[in-house]
Amino acid sequence: MNAKVSHLGEIALVARLLERIGSTGTPVGPGDDAAALEITPGRWLLATTDILVEGVHFRSDWAEAWQVGYKSLAVNVSDIAAMGGSPTYALISLALPGELSAAWVEGFYQGLERCALRWGIKIVGGDTVAAPQVVVTVTLLGEVEAGRALTRAAGRPGDILAVTGDLGAAAAGLHELENPGPVSSAARSSVLRRHLLPAPRVREGAILAGTPGIGAVIDLSDGLARGAWEVATACGLGAEVYAERLPVSAFTREVARGHGRDPLEWALYGGEDYELLFSVRPSEFAALRDRIRNACGTPVTAVGCLLPREAGIVLCRGQSRLTLGKGYEHFRSTYG
Amino acid sequence: MNAKVSHLGEIALVARLLERIGSTGTPVGPGDDAAALEITPGRWLLATTDILVEGVHFRSDWAEAWQVGYKSLAVNVSDIAAMGGSPTYALISLALPGELSAAWVEGFYQGLERCALRWGIKIVGGDTVAAPQVVVTVTLLGEVEAGRALTRAAGRPGDILAVTGDLGAAAAGLHELENPGPVSSAARSSVLRRHLLPAPRVREGAILAGTPGIGAVIDLSDGLARGAWEVATACGLGAEVYAERLPVSAFTREVARGHGRDPLEWALYGGEDYELLFSVRPSEFAALRDRIRNACGTPVTAVGCLLPREAGIVLCRGQSRLTLGKGYEHFRSTYG
Repeated sequence: MNAKVSHLGEIALVARLLERIGSTGTPVGPGDDAAALEITPGRWLLATTDILVEGVHFRSDWAEAWQVGYKSLAVNVSDIAAMGGSPTYALISLALPGELSAAWVEGFYQGLERCALRWGIKIVGGDTVAAPQVVVTVTLLGEVEAGRALTRAAGRPGDILAVTGDLGAAAAGLHELENPGPVSSAARSSVLRRHLLPAPRVREGAILAGTPGIGAVIDLSDGLARGAWEVATACGLGAEVYAERLPVSAFTREVARGHGRDPLEWALYGGEDYELLFSVRPSEFAALRDRIRNACGTPVTAVGCLLPREAGIVLCRGQSRLTLGKGYEHFRSTYG
Repeated sequence: MNAKVSHLGEIALVARLLERIGSTGTPVGPGDDAAALEITPGRWLLATTDILVEGVHFRSDWAEAWQVGYKSLAVNVSDIAAMGGSPTYALISLALPGELSAAWVEGFYQGLERCALRWGIKIVGGDTVAAPQVVVTVTLLGEVEAGRALTRAAGRPGDILAVTGDLGAAAAGLHELENPGPVSSAARSSVLRRHLLPAPRVREGAILAGTPGIGAVIDLSDGLARGAWEVATACGLGAEVYAERLPVSAFTREVARGHGRDPLEWALYGGEDYELLFSVRPSEFAALRDRIRNACGTPVTAVGCLLPREAGIVLCRGQSRLTLGKGYEHFRSTYG
């Protein structure tokens, strides 16, 4: 017990917590994108929470206050989307340094309201305290028809693994913020927007919740590699992901060229794309892809498949086969 | 708009937020101890959140990890108690430095579980991130019969203002931690416990919710002066508080003597007592006091009354009459 938090890593810490609190007797308990609670007959209440820390999740010199406000709510909306639910009520907790400008706080609330308006969310409470740095905690409630919640554990061997939208754009935006490269202004503004103002896939999640043959669903907050590992692990299965199949936009490729980087690395390990990764029976895939494209204008791409456990969790790239680890971990990467 | 957060103070910041988000169409919206949401016919869902910051709300050299875990949930239980509700589900967000020991985190969870078990709460989710300092955010849900939620705005002129338990003990404990005085070990351990392990008044709140003639209710997190000011302001009324009537325990008085301090100052401005302050029709007071004492063993003391607005909000002490201000404010006191 002399280990430090940085040695354990986030996944081990969360696993330790889950082990302690164990099964809660709720339809979907700790460990999924959101908890599902049986409160009303026929409807499940969803609940999720996320912390954003200045200097870790955002930098005030890179993001305007309203963008921080918008994103802090949007990342929670993405968790509700990954359950197939609709967001409803939010509580906002703010730790603020005394020397912060009141204008920053005002801007933060404006961004928060903009996101709340976009998704029909009511902000019903919160807390405000003094602290040496800005820490934002948002708790978001939502709802979904009873029994319809999407979980990360319901995949079956043979399911296709698919993603909405495209990957790596948020990481491209982060690199542009850190060190602007020789890229077109259209590419720059596109990837910055993807990093600063994520678009949660609420309508796409609702379609998944209403489609037969959907298995596991997760939102990609930490890159496809981590997401695929989490889904396969939660299902107790193996998986193969085909790197060449990952959807990467022309803008992301342009920014990667400008930075001399590999866009597939961003798609696999970059994080913060907030696309949905899900598994679906092969017989349902084509119809589902068309349905989401027609209803939302969002592309859906098959990137791999779930396999029996013995197959391991493997990334296939060209001729090489890499067994996937846990991907990005907050503690190790920041403090390791 | 060049003002800083420390100039505005917490109350102005919160008022500004409330002004922005305005009425939400919920039975009890932002600004009360908890929000009340109409989700199930006949029952209201309650939701509240609190942030605790290391160095502001707790110090790791004064409080053991399990005490921090216990208290971080207990202060939220107190908010649900002040609505007359029962706590149900909690979400826990932790920002942790990488150099923190894993044993601290383990201890924190143990304290959290202990409080959850005490009040029948299920921990259903959370988030864990890296940060330079420990920040704990707890969101707690609860429930109350529809229409029965206690609010801080329902007091009427002529109501008696009363408190449960006794006041100033948590502040006495804080002073003992900061600078141990010449006091008996019984007094020391009593006031330390009151500071470190607050006992939320859930059963007392439930009795208030079931009693006719109850007006405004609030939990005392920031001292009686601030609480009385908040209740009177929320009701749009005046109030008088009689300092000599404030209940202060023999242990608190002993610690105050040992420190050369005035225990009434702690009772008025010390905070963190988590007793309930409520208003009640004078005709109901005696029966209610007996009911709470018989059911819970908790004393109830009349400390003042609500008056028409023109009377102002006044603290009467001996011959002097002091118009009450806003009491303790996090930003000003910490950074002012």
